[in-house]
Amino acid sequence: MVVSTINGTSPLSHSNGTTIPLSTFSRNSFVNVEKGDPVAFRPYWEKVRDECTVEIKGDEWMSYLGDTNNLCWYMVPQMRDAILRLHNVVGNAVTKDKFLVLGTGSSQLYQALLYALSPSESSHRPINVVAAAPYYSEYKDATDILQSRLFQWTGDAALYDKDEPYIEVVTSPNNPDGTLRVPVVNSGVEGKIIYDLAYYWPQYTPITDQLDHDVMVFTFSKCTGHAGSRIGWAFVKDIEVAKKMIRFVQLNSIGVSRESQIRAAKMIGVICDGYKNLKSIESDHLFFDYSKRLMKERWEKFKGAIEKSKVFTLTKYPTSYCHFNKDLSEQYPGNIFSPMKSENTYSYTAFAWLKCLEGIKDGESYLEKLKIRTRGGGRFGVDAKYVRVSMIGTEDEFIELCTRLSNAKRE
Amino acid sequence: MVVSTINGTSPLSHSNGTTIPLSTFSRNSFVNVEKGDPVAFRPYWEKVRDECTVEIKGDEWMSYLGDTNNLCWYMVPQMRDAILRLHNVVGNAVTKDKFLVLGTGSSQLYQALLYALSPSESSHRPINVVAAAPYYSEYKDATDILQSRLFQWTGDAALYDKDEPYIEVVTSPNNPDGTLRVPVVNSGVEGKIIYDLAYYWPQYTPITDQLDHDVMVFTFSKCTGHAGSRIGWAFVKDIEVAKKMIRFVQLNSIGVSRESQIRAAKMIGVICDGYKNLKSIESDHLFFDYSKRLMKERWEKFKGAIEKSKVFTLTKYPTSYCHFNKDLSEQYPGNIFSPMKSENTYSYTAFAWLKCLEGIKDGESYLEKLKIRTRGGGRFGVDAKYVRVSMIGTEDEFIELCTRLSNAKRE
Repeated sequence: MVVSTINGTSPLSHSNGTTIPLSTFSRNSFVNVEKGDPVAFRPYWEKVRDECTVEIKGDEWMSYLGDTNNLCWYMVPQMRDAILRLHNVVGNAVTKDKFLVLGTGSSQLYQALLYALSPSESSHRPINVVAAAPYYSEYKDATDILQSRLFQWTGDAALYDKDEPYIEVVTSPNNPDGTLRVPVVNSGVEGKIIYDLAYYWPQYTPITDQLDHDVMVFTFSKCTGHAGSRIGWAFVKDIEVAKKMIRFVQLNSIGVSRESQIRAAKMIGVICDGYKNLKSIESDHLFFDYSKRLMKERWEKFKGAIEKSKVFTLTKYPTSYCHFNKDLSEQYPGNIFSPMKSENTYSYTAFAWLKCLEGIKDGESYLEKLKIRTRGGGRFGVDAKYVRVSMIGTEDEFIELCTRLSNAKRE
Repeated sequence: MVVSTINGTSPLSHSNGTTIPLSTFSRNSFVNVEKGDPVAFRPYWEKVRDECTVEIKGDEWMSYLGDTNNLCWYMVPQMRDAILRLHNVVGNAVTKDKFLVLGTGSSQLYQALLYALSPSESSHRPINVVAAAPYYSEYKDATDILQSRLFQWTGDAALYDKDEPYIEVVTSPNNPDGTLRVPVVNSGVEGKIIYDLAYYWPQYTPITDQLDHDVMVFTFSKCTGHAGSRIGWAFVKDIEVAKKMIRFVQLNSIGVSRESQIRAAKMIGVICDGYKNLKSIESDHLFFDYSKRLMKERWEKFKGAIEKSKVFTLTKYPTSYCHFNKDLSEQYPGNIFSPMKSENTYSYTAFAWLKCLEGIKDGESYLEKLKIRTRGGGRFGVDAKYVRVSMIGTEDEFIELCTRLSNAKRE
């Protein structure tokens, strides 16, 4: 695995539209945009590094217990309060009358949910787990790794036609292709739906609705970029589902790191304080403004590079109206988000989903020759002519990616 | 769940042998010694709280990646170095020529190991997982929660007589009864052994050997008392086993909290620095000296209370010679550990394992009436006349426990 640690030119200070600054990458090293490590937002956290500093003393947070008055006994009150406040500020989810279950990242919650939503009688056949292709590449292995008798991966939700119980995972915006999704299974049997909302934050997509589903999963990693903290959370309507999830997390890891909870609560607090003190703060210090602008600039550069490449096309994304940005614009006209509707329709998703033009059958292999490491369509349940490219890596890597892509010519 | 937050009298400053100070517990509240929350060592960490302070800035430790040069890519180098240094200081495990795999507590590593040690061909029957009774109460549920086709809980290792592959979990010192253990299965088939060494630290048991098994699991929780951090680690001889474990942790939680790793590394560093600067430091500032003395004092009080109770007997523990203490004594005669062999044979285990005297069939229910919450033998695969009592809770709780036990009379 090649990871760049070289500092690139800042896109915010030096770029103008589709002009691509030179990077300091050597020609022989790989540009690794295969994973979704969300380090793109680090420059923001460098700006506010001191106000975000967390200090933990030797005798603090020693117990397994976080809050014995909460069903989710390993969650500290600060963490719970921060999560509720964040959703209140962003307006992307209805949190009222739901149980909040904390996990070691959303991956752990995915497994906890499969356990909690499966019929528990051992006489049952495994429940079918499906998601519309292209689907997140890890769902299949995460579902089947232990060959459970409770659930099994059944593949593309669009092709599901069994007359059996199922769980449909709806990732919206979707990883890898950024589309906004609704359930697609058309079956005589009622299914259970897991909404994976990892990317339903204003830097990636318009916040069109305060979602109000029975099971909604979020992750700190893709919200703020702090992937190393391994914090995820789920809002769950049914207390029995919440209880089973908490039992799973107990047996799986006896709760969630207290240090990560304290730090995540602090970070979220800094973000929310920014929007509370909107009029006295530079827009560059507002996290979602900063990160949306960064994603916008990257997407503009990237589209320019793809147009030059003559090898790939980009998925067309639907656009819609963002209430979060609109509300901000109305409160604070100087905000970078214009109150005009055109500016509030966007799709700056965390991954680009490329399709090779005719003549190239395997996009991943093709890009490997250009020393660009990507994740091919096969991993997402579709044709190898598709590839996923991370848009949230380091700036240097991103610039080099654009340079290499724009120079790509059909052989 | 009732958890005391009242500060009790310090046993180190006020106690003398079996005299039990009065606690501030109300008569109606439960003493909860059912769980093994290791908060007993908090007073030590209060002493050294400032030198243990960890500060994490907003832009630090954001990536999923900890060390791309290490097989265990989510582990930061500081964590690895601290773990190796700790075992070097304590001398309880041979770490050379083994792979170090980090987990979200040892619970996650237990599941990772079941996955890694099971035959992967789906045609196989599930491998049998056994442990000699009384065994840790969570093994059964942790093994069977997802009804895996790879492995299944088969119960007491001493009764295992199948001619089929198996995994034996050897917990030594054992939870709940503190005994030192070796594998007990006597089968024609070769088994795989997981050594769960959560309690193989000098405060609980003599460090008699530098253990050198193929699979050894440790946890930070029971070593230092920082259970909230969810840090565990395994030493594994076979690279293929290590790779499968890492794959499991990746799918299960995409690694281990970076904040917890940084903090655990710092705590371990403070412990090791103490033993490095042995001659210039008070013994009360040496972690294992402090914690061993605390456990010793608790065990003396507890034995006194049990003797008075006329209701229970205590398991007899074997004692043996501790190399860690001996080495210290030789280096530093002023150390609290006497160089005499008698002082180095001890068993101050984290749990007391009580057996009811005749006439009481259910120890847990009996103690529940005395408002003492314990975990009954059934959970550990043995008779209900046994109960497990935590010896590592708060001081206040411990004192009240002794008071109530010493007043227990047969009805």
